[in-house]
Parts: sequence; structure tokens; C-alpha cells
Amino acid sequence: MKKIDDFLTDLSPLLRPEQIKTNPEDLAFYAQDWSRTLTPNSSAVLFPETTEETAQILKLASLHEIGVVPSGGRTGLSGGAVALHGEVVLSLTRMNSIGPLHAPSLSLKVQAGVITETVHEFLKPQGLTWPVDFASKGSSTIGGNIATNAGGVRVIRYGNTRNWVLGLTVVTMKGEVLELNHELEKNNTGYDFRQLLIGSEGTLAVITEATLKLSPLPRSTLVALFSLDGFSNLIRLFTECRRRFPTLSAFECLDSASMESVLEHFELPLPVSSPGRVYALLELENTEYTEVESALQEILESGLVLDGILAQNEKEARALWHYREGVAESILHGHEVHQEDVSVAVRDLEAFYAAIEARYRDALPGMNIYFFGHIGDGNLHIFIQKPDSMTKAEFQERAKESDFELFKILKSCHGSVSAEHGIGILKKHAIAFSRSPEELLIMGAVKKSFDPKGLLNPGKMID
Amino acid sequence: MKKIDDFLTDLSPLLRPEQIKTNPEDLAFYAQDWSRTLTPNSSAVLFPETTEETAQILKLASLHEIGVVPSGGRTGLSGGAVALHGEVVLSLTRMNSIGPLHAPSLSLKVQAGVITETVHEFLKPQGLTWPVDFASKGSSTIGGNIATNAGGVRVIRYGNTRNWVLGLTVVTMKGEVLELNHELEKNNTGYDFRQLLIGSEGTLAVITEATLKLSPLPRSTLVALFSLDGFSNLIRLFTECRRRFPTLSAFECLDSASMESVLEHFELPLPVSSPGRVYALLELENTEYTEVESALQEILESGLVLDGILAQNEKEARALWHYREGVAESILHGHEVHQEDVSVAVRDLEAFYAAIEARYRDALPGMNIYFFGHIGDGNLHIFIQKPDSMTKAEFQERAKESDFELFKILKSCHGSVSAEHGIGILKKHAIAFSRSPEELLIMGAVKKSFDPKGLLNPGKMID
Repeated sequence: MKKIDDFLTDLSPLLRPEQIKTNPEDLAFYAQDWSRTLTPNSSAVLFPETTEETAQILKLASLHEIGVVPSGGRTGLSGGAVALHGEVVLSLTRMNSIGPLHAPSLSLKVQAGVITETVHEFLKPQGLTWPVDFASKGSSTIGGNIATNAGGVRVIRYGNTRNWVLGLTVVTMKGEVLELNHELEKNNTGYDFRQLLIGSEGTLAVITEATLKLSPLPRSTLVALFSLDGFSNLIRLFTECRRRFPTLSAFECLDSASMESVLEHFELPLPVSSPGRVYALLELENTEYTEVESALQEILESGLVLDGILAQNEKEARALWHYREGVAESILHGHEVHQEDVSVAVRDLEAFYAAIEARYRDALPGMNIYFFGHIGDGNLHIFIQKPDSMTKAEFQERAKESDFELFKILKSCHGSVSAEHGIGILKKHAIAFSRSPEELLIMGAVKKSFDPKGLLNPGKMID
Repeated sequence: MKKIDDFLTDLSPLLRPEQIKTNPEDLAFYAQDWSRTLTPNSSAVLFPETTEETAQILKLASLHEIGVVPSGGRTGLSGGAVALHGEVVLSLTRMNSIGPLHAPSLSLKVQAGVITETVHEFLKPQGLTWPVDFASKGSSTIGGNIATNAGGVRVIRYGNTRNWVLGLTVVTMKGEVLELNHELEKNNTGYDFRQLLIGSEGTLAVITEATLKLSPLPRSTLVALFSLDGFSNLIRLFTECRRRFPTLSAFECLDSASMESVLEHFELPLPVSSPGRVYALLELENTEYTEVESALQEILESGLVLDGILAQNEKEARALWHYREGVAESILHGHEVHQEDVSVAVRDLEAFYAAIEARYRDALPGMNIYFFGHIGDGNLHIFIQKPDSMTKAEFQERAKESDFELFKILKSCHGSVSAEHGIGILKKHAIAFSRSPEELLIMGAVKKSFDPKGLLNPGKMID
């Protein structure tokens, strides 16, 4: 521990005492993320308040060869922000200033520790938004969203986080501050390190500030929910809706197990009169009610869906969204759950679903399996609940075996073993099913280009 | 020349004779791009027809340590596809197959050598488009567009090329084929090399195939042209239009010198009754004519513009576009022209324009200077014509001096010295005004991660 003590001694003149925490509660709290399956082990938590302080910390850490784990809202599900081997946690949460806003040029500067929902609330009175939206927005930070290229529920219309970042301020392990792309819409002057940093899970440099690209808030939204007799019709409904509605902003799904879990957990009635094997929730922006109503009537009459409901007002729309947004909470409540987050091209979804559904049912008899997700992006979440009768160890063993089958199927159809959640620690064993050995070698070399000593978020994504 | 002879000898069993050209006309033709200011020097031109052939060529070139310059439609303006030092030119132009198209999932596979406009024409009957559009679309190839992250006239609505590429097939100098992102909308499994490759100007790997993301063709477009008394009002008009019209798809400008050049060269009448110091062309998608008409009437009455005209049909819309699209041709016709392509954040445009306009007029008395471009993206093209009375050498010297002033101003306002055209050879002296020394060092290391021997497009972008 001498190394870390020397580091903290050298650091103490640069930070105020409350910016350095070493008590066991804080060490355990800040070294953990929402995945909750790893045992955290960190030696200090540091809270820089400026880019300059971050630079000084990293320069000193580099000098003392101390590993550093960058940390935001810690809502990750792959252990990307977990300190495992006594690293220092660098929490950006005190870097939470917002602004300046430049409404006419649709840009907003923020520090990395600002909470996603805070940005949404800040922009709302201006009729603007940062159109990155997902379940953990009340806790996740902008820096974390960018480091993990967050996806969410409106990717079908707006794309992932990487589409909504004009510029980044980042700090390398050497303590050098890089201003990546400032806030330019067009800038072809060499490799776009802004894009490379987005989704790099804190392994290349620490994001301290960002200039976000903004979008006007939609003038209106309409939400509908359908029950269907199966996955094939769900896919047909999606392509039909995308063809009819260019402003389709969400197309989400939940299977009957997920719907039943929501109904039971939240004590809700089924929102449609005919139950289905699968349900679709769709949202449209800036579209006339009467136009949508008649189109949906046609869809109902075509027999493609069993039943459907179109929200009549904002309250009803929020109520319909709750059936989809409550799924994860309802399944996780009081249960040990194994989670997967996979994607394939939309055109491969039907075959993929058929393949995995059959194998899961066979491979995991007696377990509750839930499928739901962002079907318009080809992105399915799969949750498997541990049966009460099974030991934790046995459950994890069985889940791992079923994963291997899943990853092989994904590889055969060029899918992703981590659509939104990243690699972190918990998906490292899976990365080779989505990336080739040649790519992994180059990834290692690129990592070294930014962080030659391998001190930044060590052991995450790649070794 | 022994080295190149050995290479070609080893290559000959792998390619048909017509896939290897070494006659002086072809060497000169394929080693040159539209910049036309460098003296090309290549030792062979190779025409692979598949990714596998490309891999074999690069593997052999690596073995023989032969430099390779990837080449598409050669419409670049920075010398990025020019062979200067006896390299082999790798022309992708025979890799021009289109398809398969997956209309419901909005994706189209193409080989790298397909012409941009061919893709547009192919998609039109399906009601779809690849929304990357610019003047050289009749000659530029998809691979070149991606390698240079092409911009163009509809970036304000659709973004740059990097937003419209789902997946890439690329070949490294080792001859390894990498499948980058397949065609996934969501895939967070390590560094996004697809994004890193976009805009890397052929220095990291050769793009051989791409899966393009498609967009529905707009149901309708409306085009208007305005005359204004100056740049301040132009910027105010832009922010006003963006606020009113969320589907604004182009906002272009030309100054009075550019307009006069177009009128003279194409023998056209001024399209509005009051001449201005600057003109704006705007295009809107999927918006009702009456809504636009009354909004434009309000703008006219507000005094923000001098005069305006709204196209009444598609023919008139094309005619208005011609005033903007004809600018470059009219200025270049029969003249030696020095070109710049710069950008700043939209909010900095007014101050930037004031600064450079004054300096240019002072620094270059007696020269014709033209400003035009994609003002909605903060992107200005600056063309300077050589006066007949000046020698070429003196002109180039003077232009270089004025560039230095321009780049210093750009650096002070965090602008880009190459908004669309890339670095290639001709902007290498300028890159340090937009990228820091630390970034340039890391760029060099990243280049080495992909191409350790430095054989791929050597001397382009970085040394």
C-alpha cells in the first residue's frame, strides 16, 4: 500500500480533503455498479471538480503507476466502472455544471457528471432535448452515456449517443487535455477521436466535458400498444409501421411472460382486451391523431394484430409506456436474474428469435425466461430468473452454458453479444463471438496508443 | 524498379492481365485527383474485383514493402488519392456491384467502387435514398465518400456520411479482412473501428464493401432563394428558419461575387428583383406549401431579407438549386483558383466572417474572392482567382500567406482547416491549426496499430 499512500500524499496539496475519500463505505459504494455481481476493491475515491484537477490526478497516477477507474452514475450492467484490484476510483459526479446553452445553434456544453434527466429537464422550457433516453436516466451521467455509447428507446429515430455529441474534452493518463472536435458539424482533419472515444468504456481517456447536439422537442407524440399472436407478425407490424410513419420514434416489444410479470408486480390490468403471445408499443412524433387512428384501424382490420389501443392523451400515453418500462423492475424484484442484451440485423430477427427461443426452452427447463426490448433496432433483452429450488452456483453454471449456445447462434448470424451494455468485465468472455482475433489485436494496439502503461480502467473490455 | 517488378511478377498469377495497368496514360490518369496541382508518379494501377483479390494484393505488397494508394472516383480536392512517390494505385472502380437491398430494414450492401449517383438512382424506384448528396456525386464512389466522410448539401438534416454507414468490410495491409459492425444498429462490443475508418482517408485499411443505411425519400421538397443585405441577416435568417421548420434540409449561401460569376458563366438572370450582398438558398422536406408561403411572407415583411422567391414546382426548384450548384464550376472555368474549405461553430460564423472578409480584402488587393457554402453547418468555401496579370508562382505565394492568416483565425475560434475535403497531401501543413501536437502523436500511433510498416497511402494526412 506504500505506492497508493505516496500517491495520495502527493495529491493532497492539489485537492480539498472532501475530494478524497478512503473510508470503507465510500470505497465499497463508489467501486460498484448496477451489475452487483462483482466484489469491489478500490483504494481511494477521488472527486475532481475541473478538467485541470482531473489532469493533475491522472498525471500523478501515471507517475506512481496507479490504476484509475473512471466513474459516473454507475448504472452500467457489465462492470465497466467496477474497481476490482485496488484501483483508484475517479468519480466525475462533482463535475456537474450545465451550460452555456446555445439554443439557435442547438448545442449545450455540460460537464461529464451531469445526470441525463437533469439535461432533459434543463432543456424542456426551451423546447429542446438531447434525444438520448433510457430507463436509468435518473442516475446515469452524460460522461457515462458517452463512454458507453448509450442506446435506449428512441434509437430507431435518433440513433445512439454517438450521433448527439459535437465535441469532447478528455484527459489522457499522461494528464494531457485533448479538445476533440470542439463543436463542429463538419471537420475532416484526421482520425475522429471523438467517435473513437464514444463507446470506449473509459479505457482510452477520461471524458470531463462534452458539447451535446440538441434536437427540437417533438410538437406532439402518440403512443399505441398492440397484442399479437407471435414474433413473425411483430416484425411485419414493425416494417409496416416504419413504412407508413417516417416519424416512428419507438417500437418496443415484450413477450407474454414479461407482460404477466408487469401486470402482477404493478397490479395492473391488461391494457388490451385480447391477450397475445407478444406485445408491441409504438410511439410516433408530430403526426396527426386522425391519420394515425385510421392507419391503425386498417392494421387491426388486416388481422396482423389481435387487438390494439391508441392513447387518447398524455396521461394514457405514459400509462402505456409504463407496461414496457416496468418490465426489468418487475422481473428483477426479489429475484436473482441472469441478463443478456443482444442484437441482430432487423431482417435476421425472426430467424434468430426462433432459434434462441427453442434452445432456451430446451436448455433451461423450469426456468422463467423473459424476452423484451428495442425490437426496431434488432435489440432484445433476455432475462432468466433463478428458480427458488436451484442454488445460486447451479443457476450461474446453467446460465453460462446457455450463454455459450446463444453466443454461437449470434456469431452465426453476425449479431452482437452486447448491443447496449458494453463489455466491461462481465462480457469479456463473449467479445470474441462478435469481434475477430485480428480486430482484438488492433484494439490492444489502439489502447496502447492512448494509454501505454495500461493504467486507465485496467482489465476492462480488453486485457 | 526491381522491387515493383518482383511484386508484379508475384501478382500476375492472381489477377487477369486487364486488372494490371502500367502504360504511362493510365499511370498518370489514375494517380491524379481533382486537385490537379500535384505531379503524379505511380508504378502500376491494379483493379481488384473482390475483397479476396484486394487481400491478396495487399498481402503481397506488404511482403515486398510496396506503398499502396487506394483510389475511387478521384474527386478529392486535397490529393488524398494522388500517388506521388511511385506507389501502386489500387483502384476500386471495378468493384461496382450493388445489392442486396433490404428495403424493410433500410439497408443496402454495395461494393466500394459504386458511383454515388448510381446508388441514388438504384434506390429511387423504391422510394428510398442514401442521403449523402454533393456536387461530385456523378463521379465519386461510395468507398471514397466513406474514406473521406463526405459532407455536402443536406448535412444540416441528415449529418455527414458517418451517420449513414451500418457496416464496412475492410482489408488491412497484412491482407486481413475485417468485418466492422456488420449491419447492426446497436453494437457496443469494443472500439468502433467502423467509425474510426470513416474519414481516415485510406491510411488505416482499404474499404472494399459497405452496408449503407437508407432513408425514405422525402414526400415533397420546397426550395426558396433570398437576397439579403449582409452576413448578419443571413445568420439570423438561418436560425429563424431552423426554428420554424424542423425539416429544413439545406441552407446554403453564396455572396454577390459568386452570384455574379454564376449569372455571367451560365447567362442567367438574377432570380430575385433586388440584388443583395449575399444570397441564401433553403430547402424544406415534407412541409405544406401554404404553411411555407405564409411563413416566408412574414419573413419578407419583417425586413430581414431584401427579396425572396419560392419555387412553384420541381422545375423551378431545380433552377434555383442551379444558382448554388453552379458556383464552383463558374469560378473555376478557365481560371487558376486557390480553394479553402473551412468551418466554425454556427454561433461563431458572424464574427469569423467579419474577421476573414476584412483580412482577405486587405491582404489580397485586386484578386477576385468568392465566399459560398453550407452555411447551416458553419462550412464556408473560399475561392480566390488568380488575376491574369499575376504569375502562377506569385499567386501561389500570396495565397499561402493569406492561408496562414486564415488558419490563425480559425485556430483562435476552434474552427476546422478542412471541413469536408480532408487533409490528404495539400492540407498537411494546416492540420496543426485544428489538431493539437498530442493528438497528432496519438494519430501516428493509431496509424501504426493498423499499418505498422506505413505502406498504406503513405505520406497522407500524417507523416
